[in-house]
Amino acid sequence: MKLGIYGYGNIGRGVEVACLQNKDVELAAIFTRRDKNTVKSILGNKVYSTSEAKDFKDKIDVMVACGGSATELPTMTVELAKDFNVIDTFDTHANILEHFNNVDKAAKENNHVALISCGWDPGMFSLNRLYANVLLPNGKDYTFWGRGVSQGHSDAIRRIKGVVDAKQYTVPIKSVVDRIKNGETPDLTTREKHTRECFVVVEDGADKNKIEQEIKTMPHYFDEYDTTVHFITLDELKKNHSGMPHGGFVTRTGTTGKDNEHKHTITYDLKLDSNPEFTSQAIVAFARALYKESQRGTKGCLTTLDIRPRDLSPKAYDEILKTIV
Amino acid sequence: MKLGIYGYGNIGRGVEVACLQNKDVELAAIFTRRDKNTVKSILGNKVYSTSEAKDFKDKIDVMVACGGSATELPTMTVELAKDFNVIDTFDTHANILEHFNNVDKAAKENNHVALISCGWDPGMFSLNRLYANVLLPNGKDYTFWGRGVSQGHSDAIRRIKGVVDAKQYTVPIKSVVDRIKNGETPDLTTREKHTRECFVVVEDGADKNKIEQEIKTMPHYFDEYDTTVHFITLDELKKNHSGMPHGGFVTRTGTTGKDNEHKHTITYDLKLDSNPEFTSQAIVAFARALYKESQRGTKGCLTTLDIRPRDLSPKAYDEILKTIV
Repeated sequence: MKLGIYGYGNIGRGVEVACLQNKDVELAAIFTRRDKNTVKSILGNKVYSTSEAKDFKDKIDVMVACGGSATELPTMTVELAKDFNVIDTFDTHANILEHFNNVDKAAKENNHVALISCGWDPGMFSLNRLYANVLLPNGKDYTFWGRGVSQGHSDAIRRIKGVVDAKQYTVPIKSVVDRIKNGETPDLTTREKHTRECFVVVEDGADKNKIEQEIKTMPHYFDEYDTTVHFITLDELKKNHSGMPHGGFVTRTGTTGKDNEHKHTITYDLKLDSNPEFTSQAIVAFARALYKESQRGTKGCLTTLDIRPRDLSPKAYDEILKTIV
Repeated sequence: MKLGIYGYGNIGRGVEVACLQNKDVELAAIFTRRDKNTVKSILGNKVYSTSEAKDFKDKIDVMVACGGSATELPTMTVELAKDFNVIDTFDTHANILEHFNNVDKAAKENNHVALISCGWDPGMFSLNRLYANVLLPNGKDYTFWGRGVSQGHSDAIRRIKGVVDAKQYTVPIKSVVDRIKNGETPDLTTREKHTRECFVVVEDGADKNKIEQEIKTMPHYFDEYDTTVHFITLDELKKNHSGMPHGGFVTRTGTTGKDNEHKHTITYDLKLDSNPEFTSQAIVAFARALYKESQRGTKGCLTTLDIRPRDLSPKAYDEILKTIV
């Protein structure tokens, strides 16, 4: 399978490295939206300009759309679906159905197959919410994230006047997590599930009190959470907060039995040193399955929920039956 | 979808009750291998003799083969595949490929579709081993079971001369579990992963020392484990050990990055009050997907790894995209 990387940021680099672990996957080309002469691939692969991508129409089996969900992917994936089979990491949960329909139309009109919202949430967490819901129809779901860096929240802080750089950690509240993992099913407000911890570097002479207030009251991002703000130096930020760890868990507790007398708890838990690299591993596995779907003649848009798990593996089915099942 | 239950033991009863939670599933008939006049369904459904099953060929969409993996399912599922679409819980891991091939042949020759090895292990644990392996090709797997009742080990003790009844708990060793959930990847012997705890009722005057020795040295079942034997009364057994709790977890830790510098841990964890009822919930969900496959014209044998997750749900795809993904 020949993979293309369209957009060379954290995910693009992650996919490039993930190809090393998947011997059946060949990296066909990396495309950057920046000046290609200023971009060096971490593994020394050649970097092309995105304007050259159309020349690779017949040389790429699946193109990975690497862009932000807020402004880039809604058009990038749709455009790419006209020329390629395409996979993306679109993660704005509220707009997934709309994005699905747009990509579906473009892919069908151009005889391609696409897969959106790959990664861990959406992605592996979506799969686990689905499995848990069908196993325990009579139950209650929880999703917790962290402790980990939220790129979106870090970006939101960086846009505040006077802020030089920032990292924001989403932190699940341990006492609540313990109750839920033990099968309790409380009703929880947003504030009762997670706290937010911010490490912020400001310009000399900036008004720290004002910035702290601006962070803590930011609608959607922080106003519904208990937020802590730490002002640190740029050196401290680089030294202690340069990683991109993340993770979290999905859990569902439900009952079975004639009188609902038996309780069951299903938990799927991820601890990730590198959010973009784990996401990239998922992209490569689902791209493999997408390529198989394309070979079967499937057209239009799919999600992780459409993929037969066996298609994710490069191994022969006999071997899977002997070693995995 | 019309479901048939073939064999009315713990799983048969579980499937009968699980139909209550799945409004799109109708219980067509329960079949027993015993004298049907002596068997009462827990929900008051009519019970037929297995000899009458063939009369239901056109009235059942999916038949659930409820039998033991050691001696019953290898022939029961194959025979049922001649007349029905069929699902089973075959769980002898070493023989899954052989069973798959036998069921596949019978199903294909008779234009049916079958699904074997449904439940939680094999079943949900198989799925999670597969997902974790494709996400982290460079990693190491662990599967732990318990604390829970092993039916097979309890049966093995009951076959010893002088034993009236027994329950055996499989117990994961907590110190090792904690290390593994924290991402360590030790090499472990069988003895280092689980202990076995037995509650045994013996006949009056039986030689307890001899029975204890016989249990502890039983090949395959106990000889490779640290085993504890408690002799108790029949009343105590009934009062304290009549449930069928189980569970366990599958975990995989692996590395990503140019120099494998990032570590990731994926854990899927189940806590089950009733092993047979949870297994039955899985059967009903996968039977739904199997019925959809049969409507598409799929023939032959499948496993949980062949099933598109979305097919497990009775919900419309738009609703799934909005609420689950």
